[in-house]
Amino acid sequence: MYNHAPQDYICPLCLLGNGEYKSPLVVVPDDVVLKTERITAFISSRWWPNNKGHIIVISNFHFENLYDIDTQYLHEIVDISQKMAIAIKKAYGCDGITVRQHNEPAGSQDVWHYHMHVIPRYTNDNFYKTDAIEGWIDPQERKGYADKVKTVLSL
Amino acid sequence: MYNHAPQDYICPLCLLGNGEYKSPLVVVPDDVVLKTERITAFISSRWWPNNKGHIIVISNFHFENLYDIDTQYLHEIVDISQKMAIAIKKAYGCDGITVRQHNEPAGSQDVWHYHMHVIPRYTNDNFYKTDAIEGWIDPQERKGYADKVKTVLSL
Repeated sequence: MYNHAPQDYICPLCLLGNGEYKSPLVVVPDDVVLKTERITAFISSRWWPNNKGHIIVISNFHFENLYDIDTQYLHEIVDISQKMAIAIKKAYGCDGITVRQHNEPAGSQDVWHYHMHVIPRYTNDNFYKTDAIEGWIDPQERKGYADKVKTVLSL
Repeated sequence: MYNHAPQDYICPLCLLGNGEYKSPLVVVPDDVVLKTERITAFISSRWWPNNKGHIIVISNFHFENLYDIDTQYLHEIVDISQKMAIAIKKAYGCDGITVRQHNEPAGSQDVWHYHMHVIPRYTNDNFYKTDAIEGWIDPQERKGYADKVKTVLSL
């Protein structure tokens, strides 16, 4: 419903959901902090200067947006987003969490596969009026955040 | 977990969840577009100049934030947020939808009861860098948006 992916779209989040890592700059196995049959949670390769290491939660199966996604996937996404929010609090020592999810180009969506952002917030981080860092974050820097989250999840 | 409500907090969203409308400027019965045993969805009395008539989805029972909320409430909140997103698309003819939810003061939360925002988006609305309109939106103006949503929901 209200879809924007072109007909020949090669969906990067379907590749990730299937465990295929074809864009090493964008997603590498070390980024993944939790994977189930239906869901993958990973450290984003794009982030904001004051809110580093945010997590993206996706369905492994393809749905373009909130209008389309099946209930069982949606429920597991929010369950895992809740788990990630609590894990990030412990792992990063942040002061709050914002979750958000975008639909359609006018709604700030830019990858045509449903994904939920779980974002660490800090006092006076000016998150909403700060631009994201340009380009991909270095995989080694992402790994530092992923390792912290995995440590908390393993406790 | 990580709660910020003061001990003597009179929770405005608990009042609303219980069908009590004690702050007529803030919430009136006409604002409510959908109510179930566990969940209430209503037109916000605060909104942004380019994104009028957004909907807030709450649990009728008190949970302060995403860390605390029970699974069955969380699942129904996302189900109804999905339903509201589709309804707003049809009712307002907007170009996209953003959903977001804030936790703790540093995470931009300012009412100490879990609530999910479902926001109509328009091409070039500059949503993230625009300040909300100051003060409460007139109940009559809110009613115009509520009526549009209720009409779509009744189809």
